[in-house]
Amino acid sequence: MNEIKIFSPATVANVSCGFDVLGFCLDSVGDDMVIRKTEKKGIHITKIEGFDLPYEADLNVAGVSALAMYEAIDVDFGFEIEIYKNIKPGSGIGSSAASAVGSVFGMNELLGRPFNKTQLTGFAIKGEALASKCEHADNLAPALFGGFTLVKSISPLQILEIPSPDDLYATIIHPQIEIKTSESRAILPKKIALSDAITQWANFGSLIHALHTSDYDLIKESLHDVVVEPHRSKLIPHFNAVKKAAITAGALGCGISGSGPSIFTLSNSLETSNNVKDAIKNVYSKTGIAFEIHVSKINTEGVKIIS
Amino acid sequence: MNEIKIFSPATVANVSCGFDVLGFCLDSVGDDMVIRKTEKKGIHITKIEGFDLPYEADLNVAGVSALAMYEAIDVDFGFEIEIYKNIKPGSGIGSSAASAVGSVFGMNELLGRPFNKTQLTGFAIKGEALASKCEHADNLAPALFGGFTLVKSISPLQILEIPSPDDLYATIIHPQIEIKTSESRAILPKKIALSDAITQWANFGSLIHALHTSDYDLIKESLHDVVVEPHRSKLIPHFNAVKKAAITAGALGCGISGSGPSIFTLSNSLETSNNVKDAIKNVYSKTGIAFEIHVSKINTEGVKIIS
Repeated sequence: MNEIKIFSPATVANVSCGFDVLGFCLDSVGDDMVIRKTEKKGIHITKIEGFDLPYEADLNVAGVSALAMYEAIDVDFGFEIEIYKNIKPGSGIGSSAASAVGSVFGMNELLGRPFNKTQLTGFAIKGEALASKCEHADNLAPALFGGFTLVKSISPLQILEIPSPDDLYATIIHPQIEIKTSESRAILPKKIALSDAITQWANFGSLIHALHTSDYDLIKESLHDVVVEPHRSKLIPHFNAVKKAAITAGALGCGISGSGPSIFTLSNSLETSNNVKDAIKNVYSKTGIAFEIHVSKINTEGVKIIS
Repeated sequence: MNEIKIFSPATVANVSCGFDVLGFCLDSVGDDMVIRKTEKKGIHITKIEGFDLPYEADLNVAGVSALAMYEAIDVDFGFEIEIYKNIKPGSGIGSSAASAVGSVFGMNELLGRPFNKTQLTGFAIKGEALASKCEHADNLAPALFGGFTLVKSISPLQILEIPSPDDLYATIIHPQIEIKTSESRAILPKKIALSDAITQWANFGSLIHALHTSDYDLIKESLHDVVVEPHRSKLIPHFNAVKKAAITAGALGCGISGSGPSIFTLSNSLETSNNVKDAIKNVYSKTGIAFEIHVSKINTEGVKIIS
């Protein structure tokens, strides 16, 4: 096998009470990529469609993660990468993670899978760092492993796969506005009340238990973020109205995807997830802000081979 | 059935990263109590052995929880309570919770179980409040449900039963010193660093996952408390030496039981738990402070009928 086409999915990080550690993987949104073995050594990006991104491997997220893996292997050939980008950079649903994951996943397949998924995360994190200026695996882990992932630690990398109930669906709205990473970081408090922290870990522990037991009621009761959302939601126009409409329409919960501007909701059926889509659409249509909406089953497979 | 003898177990609350929400139940330490239906109406404490506690029902933890239940039922008889107290008050392993739980559990059995365990917790919490000046269920929940419990919320009461791996054992040392509740509360910071809070909920989520998957390695990697232990451990003489000895002897983790002075450790076998006991004993024997040590399997049953 000398060439592989893969689908690298969008992902949601900072899942409410699981801020900075819990993420999940989407099914219906993602990038396509082609990875090809070449006689020419090194990593070469030969095609980019969808968005205007650099072709220089060391300036491109997919290229940097590919280079990190390439340095760890000893081969007398190289790789070409084609990127068909569907996830808009800066959307808050893991655009850079999809790129970073796609190249190393594809290369690993062509090499006969010498690396496990945690090791692939380790390479991909170098690409992610190019985009987000820090090493984090919140989006990489769900993109690679699928389902829900808990990044227990970054150094050493420790990723836990949390089970996902069968009928869990996400509705995601992406308002077409830009939130600067620096701004979304600066708005976070350095210190928080101990009582809020306790509420947060009670909810987070409950959410992990609820995912293990497929307890949708408990998922709903646990999907609260009393620490970060009260601050960051101010950066997303009409966040509260969207949340209210989503919950009224039957969503289990609603929160900021990554550091925004996308907003995610979770529902216990496709039907509800579509109702939530309509309800959110109704709110945002009146704002004058352009937006995209996606409905997706939780993708338990993660990045995958198309052909 | 007019009389019942029950065993009401000691418990560990504030389990490391699960501060204020996670507790577990012990097997080898606990109080015995006799509950008896009487023609005379009301709640009457007729015998107390072990420690000097008030006989007036409204001044006694077991009495107050019994009165709370008694007010919720409409019967033309009363109850007598005998308390054979083995758990020293103020030890940090749920002495008041055992009393509060025992009376309502026994009465409920004699009444034909009109109440579920969450409702029993609601009555017992009134007794617990007498002892600890605030309503909390951290010890009540594991005493009633057994195993590991997560108190998701107090109002409304929501208690989750977390699975417990088969070979989990606890070693508990109780240094015979007094820590004032006011002091152990005052030493807690009102605010904590967001980064510490994130570490805590990453660990707590991981611990819940580890208990679900019987992953002893992950239990070990998750049993850390970066928020409360650094402060409260100062109130417990030789805490760090005990912890070091326990971990060296093979314990999965070590922390403060409740608000101390007891220290708990968890191990993945009876043999290791006994080794940990020897190691801790060796540390404390040199200090001149009197102590008791218990080794106990995790009690998955909770409070139970003896006869």
